[in-house]
Amino acid sequence: MDALLTDVEQWGRFELVQIAPEQNNAFGDGVWSATFQNESEFIDVKGFYDGDGTYRLRFMPNRTGEWFYVTHSNVKQLDGITGSFTCVEPSQENHGYVQVKDAGHFCYADGNAYHPFGTTCYAWIHQPEEVRQRTIESLRQAPFNKIRMTVFPKNYSFNATNPVEFPFEGSQEDGFDLTRFNPNFFQRLEGHIDELLSMGIEADLILFHPYDEGRWGFDRMSSEADHNYLRYLIARLSSFRNVWWALANEYDFMNEKKVEDWDALFQTVLTEDPYGHLRSIHNGTKMYEPDSVVLYNHGHDWITHCSIQHWDVTLVREWQKTYGKPIVIDECLYEGNVPFRWGNITAEEMTHRFWEAAVRGGYAGHGETYLHPEGEIWWAKGGKLYGESPERISFLRQIIEQLPEASKPLFTLRQMETIGVEDEIYLGYFGVHRPSYFEAQFNETYSYKVEIIDTWNMSIHPVEGVLRGKSTIQLPAKPGMALRIQKVD
Amino acid sequence: MDALLTDVEQWGRFELVQIAPEQNNAFGDGVWSATFQNESEFIDVKGFYDGDGTYRLRFMPNRTGEWFYVTHSNVKQLDGITGSFTCVEPSQENHGYVQVKDAGHFCYADGNAYHPFGTTCYAWIHQPEEVRQRTIESLRQAPFNKIRMTVFPKNYSFNATNPVEFPFEGSQEDGFDLTRFNPNFFQRLEGHIDELLSMGIEADLILFHPYDEGRWGFDRMSSEADHNYLRYLIARLSSFRNVWWALANEYDFMNEKKVEDWDALFQTVLTEDPYGHLRSIHNGTKMYEPDSVVLYNHGHDWITHCSIQHWDVTLVREWQKTYGKPIVIDECLYEGNVPFRWGNITAEEMTHRFWEAAVRGGYAGHGETYLHPEGEIWWAKGGKLYGESPERISFLRQIIEQLPEASKPLFTLRQMETIGVEDEIYLGYFGVHRPSYFEAQFNETYSYKVEIIDTWNMSIHPVEGVLRGKSTIQLPAKPGMALRIQKVD
Repeated sequence: MDALLTDVEQWGRFELVQIAPEQNNAFGDGVWSATFQNESEFIDVKGFYDGDGTYRLRFMPNRTGEWFYVTHSNVKQLDGITGSFTCVEPSQENHGYVQVKDAGHFCYADGNAYHPFGTTCYAWIHQPEEVRQRTIESLRQAPFNKIRMTVFPKNYSFNATNPVEFPFEGSQEDGFDLTRFNPNFFQRLEGHIDELLSMGIEADLILFHPYDEGRWGFDRMSSEADHNYLRYLIARLSSFRNVWWALANEYDFMNEKKVEDWDALFQTVLTEDPYGHLRSIHNGTKMYEPDSVVLYNHGHDWITHCSIQHWDVTLVREWQKTYGKPIVIDECLYEGNVPFRWGNITAEEMTHRFWEAAVRGGYAGHGETYLHPEGEIWWAKGGKLYGESPERISFLRQIIEQLPEASKPLFTLRQMETIGVEDEIYLGYFGVHRPSYFEAQFNETYSYKVEIIDTWNMSIHPVEGVLRGKSTIQLPAKPGMALRIQKVD
Repeated sequence: MDALLTDVEQWGRFELVQIAPEQNNAFGDGVWSATFQNESEFIDVKGFYDGDGTYRLRFMPNRTGEWFYVTHSNVKQLDGITGSFTCVEPSQENHGYVQVKDAGHFCYADGNAYHPFGTTCYAWIHQPEEVRQRTIESLRQAPFNKIRMTVFPKNYSFNATNPVEFPFEGSQEDGFDLTRFNPNFFQRLEGHIDELLSMGIEADLILFHPYDEGRWGFDRMSSEADHNYLRYLIARLSSFRNVWWALANEYDFMNEKKVEDWDALFQTVLTEDPYGHLRSIHNGTKMYEPDSVVLYNHGHDWITHCSIQHWDVTLVREWQKTYGKPIVIDECLYEGNVPFRWGNITAEEMTHRFWEAAVRGGYAGHGETYLHPEGEIWWAKGGKLYGESPERISFLRQIIEQLPEASKPLFTLRQMETIGVEDEIYLGYFGVHRPSYFEAQFNETYSYKVEIIDTWNMSIHPVEGVLRGKSTIQLPAKPGMALRIQKVD
């Protein structure tokens, strides 16, 4: 059977579907693959078994034009299928997958800047339909363009319910057959990732995590099962342009795995993903220290960006210097009021951390942990957002996205942390500092207009007139203020 | 001439005064000294020239009983004077000098605990009389039991006026004779140190500092002049029990001095001070890093405690571990509204930093930098206090002083930083965290009473009843709350 002869957008998804008898080890590796070719470019991709005698093979074309393919398999019905499709210009909302730019930032494949403003709903896909609908509705209103979410279900405080279904055949009671996946689970996951894509949200997919503690055992599978799961997942998902590979969350809390295990798992991701989606690993309590044999080094070549847990987002530039990679502090504590330290800061503090990270060229991450009568807490289950920080994060996101792409941390204006383009534009944040006035020596050649930004009240107050050379700007002497200073001539 | 035959308190001051012709190099070293003896203890101390043909020699007896002395000099009138005095029990307010206790804390010589709650008025002694009077009045009302103050005048932002007098003969216009001290200056300094003593305030005396920049040149004297100044100062002041030697403030901003120079100056302090007053050195921007050749190591034997400048007081335990010494964060930014980062945090933030340091077993320091129409800013000149943190620091000081002396950081109660005595008493601070409730597992053997402390509103709310074993305490879910949990049976 051939693919439907529809055009595919650049960075869209081409899918071949073939019916064939279920093979022995159909869910295993190497049953079906194909080579795609456009001019001098050849890309090999793997297919996967989707249950019920259905085999699928997906491909994300990275350039426009005519793509030809030929399939390979030991199974007669899957072998030697050839065809072609036309890859056309992407639609307006399609900017391609996200990649690293200039060692410290991100951009889409089409070159447009991407600034992650992420949130965390670890186990949202594992909740009942109605909760998932609420999550989707919330995300539609929210400022987030990235979400951290787990493939495996979660067993943790405020999150002890069973998931709606499992990635493997079997059950908690009877055990799971780790060689046989549950296609329904993955189809639903894919649907959710496409829903996220339609909202412009990157799926920062957490491949392993410790919040199982042996209840289902997905945190302590054999190495063979781990790698098999990764291969299957990647075969299904790598053609989704909004997927990021978060190898693990709080990997250092997973006592069953060692540094060498993570190395090997990263190697499998590298081998299996033909597109080079973003790859990282998220720490628990500890940052990597040189010579540590238990902590994982974000400096490895195969890690594209740092996914960090740390309460002190002012360390962004230090990490940037150490790793030369984009710095995403995916967890810098969550807005909420639960009894745990990681989940009870105020909206003011969350907003503050986003700004502190942003003006240093880094990216803080959001999460929300307000007690809820039904235990429906955003950070774990999704549902509704109750906090006051998302609105402020939206305000910040607009301001950051208005900056020129060449913006980077600047050090010419003292007394505040500043990002921008020298002599052109400065966005500075005072944080806990609340000066009565700000003095600066601007380039004498130009005039500048100044706006005072109240990061909490989300207001922008233009300062009357223009400034030139040595200037003084009166300020309201309260915390959480920012300045935007732009050249006007 | 003999000393007056009055009794001297333990840790009080005995002074010999002798009239003799001014010698060539009378202000220099080794003109007059004496040996004091009580039973098997012999202590050598140096005298000094106080101008107008007057020589003085001071001694602080460290134990009660009969002390005998004999003087030594090449000057006939100063040599071979003998005498004795009786050292009696100290009066109620006299606890002796402060020393290090248990590697992480301080106590007075009589064993009573001393918890530094310090402030900074760098150049207060250099201001006109009326300003100094205001400073004294403010200190009388304030909660501070330590003050950082410079010997040399200060030339800095908001502090450009000339001092009322100089430590050396001469003037800015005609130059200073660094071999000849100005006794009036030192007599006045001594008067101020005694005024501080009468208020129970330790004088953390800054011996060198960079806020001169060559205006008067005291930041760039010859090594000979530096050491001569130190010897003279110590001969005059070491018998003042409330003196601490702060070798320098922001030493790393003094480009004229190198690590070896500080080593040598510390050596002089060690040699000249017979009593071993507390010794430290205060950093500017940078903390010591191993192998640095420009940064000074608080780990040296001759440094008794760490006098730190750092905005992050939560590093207390890390420094404690590194240095095994008491941690005083003398500068963690100041309450105020000046345009400089170091001087424009809120009273809330200042209060917060004091608590964060305290529950980790460290000590934050206060300073105040509110703009003032006459430029009379507390941190530099003294005068009046306008801020809202001193009242809160007073509240904290009372709570800390009520803790048992054996208190130390504890790690059994999670979710807050805690100091206390295991199973007896816990003082915990939540800081930016604002849980709705607190769960803990107390020792099942005992009952505990709990108080919720609002660190900003300075209120203490007892929780009804007593707790035993696994307990839940409802909290107001706002930042800046603390808990005091005490065993009741």
